[in-house]
Amino acid sequence: MPRDLHQITPSPVAFVGAGPGDPDLLTLKALRALQTADVVIHDRLVSTEILALVGPQTRLRNAGKEGFGPSLTQGAINDMIVDEALSGARVVRLKSGDPTVFGRLDEELDAILEAGLDYSIIPGLTSASAAVAALGQSLTKRGRNTAVRLITGHDMQGYADHDWRALARDGEVAAIYMAKKAARFIQGRLLMHGAAPGTPVTIVENASRPDQRIVAATLATLPAILAEADMTGPALLMYGLAPRDAARAALPQIQEMI
Amino acid sequence: MPRDLHQITPSPVAFVGAGPGDPDLLTLKALRALQTADVVIHDRLVSTEILALVGPQTRLRNAGKEGFGPSLTQGAINDMIVDEALSGARVVRLKSGDPTVFGRLDEELDAILEAGLDYSIIPGLTSASAAVAALGQSLTKRGRNTAVRLITGHDMQGYADHDWRALARDGEVAAIYMAKKAARFIQGRLLMHGAAPGTPVTIVENASRPDQRIVAATLATLPAILAEADMTGPALLMYGLAPRDAARAALPQIQEMI
Repeated sequence: MPRDLHQITPSPVAFVGAGPGDPDLLTLKALRALQTADVVIHDRLVSTEILALVGPQTRLRNAGKEGFGPSLTQGAINDMIVDEALSGARVVRLKSGDPTVFGRLDEELDAILEAGLDYSIIPGLTSASAAVAALGQSLTKRGRNTAVRLITGHDMQGYADHDWRALARDGEVAAIYMAKKAARFIQGRLLMHGAAPGTPVTIVENASRPDQRIVAATLATLPAILAEADMTGPALLMYGLAPRDAARAALPQIQEMI
Repeated sequence: MPRDLHQITPSPVAFVGAGPGDPDLLTLKALRALQTADVVIHDRLVSTEILALVGPQTRLRNAGKEGFGPSLTQGAINDMIVDEALSGARVVRLKSGDPTVFGRLDEELDAILEAGLDYSIIPGLTSASAAVAALGQSLTKRGRNTAVRLITGHDMQGYADHDWRALARDGEVAAIYMAKKAARFIQGRLLMHGAAPGTPVTIVENASRPDQRIVAATLATLPAILAEADMTGPALLMYGLAPRDAARAALPQIQEMI
């Protein structure tokens, strides 16, 4: 039966953070949104375990790739969200991590607003939080760093440029997203600006997931260790941080106490 | 009945992020930890609604202040955690936001490890994520900023110094924690380094809580607007970001479509 367009009330779109991958790191609010949605439009990186939590009536649409077709353009994703919401479906736009951190949220929000739709944002845990917890470290620490940067290895032009001189200083900490391919570039820039070759850089692949892997390196060894690790999952470079256990291994007097 | 010390197995301590305040922004994992803990040692800023979620058998201990006494020292908090864990209690150390972001996690972790105890870290949503979601904005945006900083207004020496020159550039975004008292200092440093006086700075008080307040300012008007707002709750300065509704108000053609 064709629906009468005049009876359809467009629904607000909920942009929801799926967190780093462990379903237990979803917020209660995100879980409720997943369970009550008519349709969940999700990224490729959202884990199967999280997609299994949607309500029995919920349709899943993969915005990363549909079926065996090519990846969708951002414009096609925008259209998908708008069309679903205009049809009256309660739409959850599910993004891995936090939609406000390297999530291309603004482009979708603009499309929503241009279509006269309303929205809400349910923040999620960004993967840097899960990665640093897995190291037993903090993103900030009294006496070491009073600021932490979340930065991307790539931008629209290719490898992203950053304040390398500032990052090269002792005690700086940054979580570098999408950094695997850019690792040698990042290494070169930081060394050129005076960073110590022994500065710890820890790679965390698939943070919070069952296949999480933590590989400790230094700025000097980073490209070789990355090549050897042969990672296929999403990975974060935790610049300036070593795993706490490795730090303890370098302090035998503490190691023995435990 | 006195317990036989030889039968007590020290339990690992779980450092748990309570998120920004809204109980619905707890992770599923954090909720489970609260419900199964023997004792929850919490900060002053953790909301009453979250503390109400602990299990019926769970003891609550306020590490911010006990009864009508003075605030506890960090050493006294460390001792409290260690003593509870050594007695065999399942301890949750509950910190507002994310324990790895301005949470003084390392000092407590060091005490735990020195006592021969094990630990786990359950990350939480840091308040910047909730604050930026409330603005309808992103912390990062293609073509605007490829890095975001989480910085503190205060450090051990007083007002914290930062890369003011870098922050003063067009399009920079930072979430500044504990910044109310430091606001005039921050304003002065940024203007001195060439930041535009019209750079948006939005103050978000009590992010995600029922008494959340969003006050839009610019770098030029920040101290006056902060003084007028007379805020008593925890507040974040969102540097470089205006509320999306205010941005839309400046675009009447879009405003009318909604």
